[in-house]
Amino acid sequence: MSEAATSGSGMSGSGRGSCVIAGLGPGDPSLITPQVKAALDAATDVVGYIPYVRRIAPRPGLRLHESDNRVELDRARHALEMAEEGRHVVVVSSGDPGVFAMAAAIFEAVEAHPPWAALEITVLPGITAMLAAAAAAGAPLGHDFCAINLSDNLKPWALIEERLTLALRADFAIALYNPRSKARPDGFGRCLDLLRAQVEPERLILFARAVSTPDQDLRTLPLAECTPEMADMRTIVSIGARATRAIPRPDRAPFLYTPRSVPE
Amino acid sequence: MSEAATSGSGMSGSGRGSCVIAGLGPGDPSLITPQVKAALDAATDVVGYIPYVRRIAPRPGLRLHESDNRVELDRARHALEMAEEGRHVVVVSSGDPGVFAMAAAIFEAVEAHPPWAALEITVLPGITAMLAAAAAAGAPLGHDFCAINLSDNLKPWALIEERLTLALRADFAIALYNPRSKARPDGFGRCLDLLRAQVEPERLILFARAVSTPDQDLRTLPLAECTPEMADMRTIVSIGARATRAIPRPDRAPFLYTPRSVPE
Repeated sequence: MSEAATSGSGMSGSGRGSCVIAGLGPGDPSLITPQVKAALDAATDVVGYIPYVRRIAPRPGLRLHESDNRVELDRARHALEMAEEGRHVVVVSSGDPGVFAMAAAIFEAVEAHPPWAALEITVLPGITAMLAAAAAAGAPLGHDFCAINLSDNLKPWALIEERLTLALRADFAIALYNPRSKARPDGFGRCLDLLRAQVEPERLILFARAVSTPDQDLRTLPLAECTPEMADMRTIVSIGARATRAIPRPDRAPFLYTPRSVPE
Repeated sequence: MSEAATSGSGMSGSGRGSCVIAGLGPGDPSLITPQVKAALDAATDVVGYIPYVRRIAPRPGLRLHESDNRVELDRARHALEMAEEGRHVVVVSSGDPGVFAMAAAIFEAVEAHPPWAALEITVLPGITAMLAAAAAAGAPLGHDFCAINLSDNLKPWALIEERLTLALRADFAIALYNPRSKARPDGFGRCLDLLRAQVEPERLILFARAVSTPDQDLRTLPLAECTPEMADMRTIVSIGARATRAIPRPDRAPFLYTPRSVPE
């Protein structure tokens, strides 16, 4: 865990500290809520995965604590220890902190060390990637939907396949987080195989990469044309429900949407 | 549909109009993104369900168009007609416009009238109620989850029961939108009966009412103690997954959270 203390001591050691777990949204600064902005302005310490902490502007009195991916529990304990010392800590997540992000890790750390439950701990919501992706494409989550983390780092792969199968039977629109990484190159291909075995080849799939950033790239195509390398860790994959459809536009990508009604 | 034209003509009749479908978040103004704020500041017309339009401050040059609930398609067509006339229209939804709100209704109207597909139509995401409710309670959606609209106005009740049953089998945390209204007083009671038949009486249920407003009220209790009248149209009901648990706090409501990992 590296620390880039910018300067100053902030408020430390005395008084009552706090730990705020805040969502920075998917990337565009205009998607950060004023509530989160105010928490960052009041912070003495910001803690998070390197690329998220780098989104915070340094200022006197603010210490920035960057840590690697996959050390969420260490990071959570570090944040809670500093809050216990009287500091005002903001733990930053991309998107919403309650969706496959730091909020659950903080509560796991609190559960393992009950005195921390007396600390001032607050979760501030953010724009989660699947909703930013949906908005950029149209309204593909316009009816009942689910969100599945495709990483099998913390759960068995068989459970992922079972959830996908039940979600397809329920005809949910499905948002997949963390579809594919260098350490997990094969899971998304297996997911596509499962889809091909269970739904029609025309089913519409949205690949939404780096939504709301300058690198944003949206592609909608039928399942039959999807390949594993279309997804990476910056991609949200949105699997349409049966009724999900595209509306053609002149000279533009189509709108993708799921109607609100399901006929009898 | 009533119209409260505050004054001025705005930009109309000439030039290229636009239709922005924007999410106002669950109620607290500090949860409105700067992106949505900028769209409202540039609007000539704001369209929406009465209580959402009342959240917009009147100003010269802005026309406010309030409409009743359950006239979503009429409202969508009205917005698109004004955009076609060159006006800058913002359709406001509570929460996120892509989650059981106006974005899908707009695209239904566009699909039925293809020339509207050439209009400048943009969806701006917002903080949806289930994520604000989750943040206020802790991290109950900390693992795979789904969102189900409990209203059977636009889909058969049997489909709702099928989706609930499959979601419980998949062990999703479940967020229920629109659980109970005066026009639909019985559905949520049937939902509780279904839950009692399928999961253990200790399963934790969160009732999050009017989240982020001065009326906010959060209650977490085991399924065995839940009654239908605990929910209304301002309530999000969050059904825990098997692993969802409460962390006691001194003199405060417990934190509610779902761990990130599922053991083999």
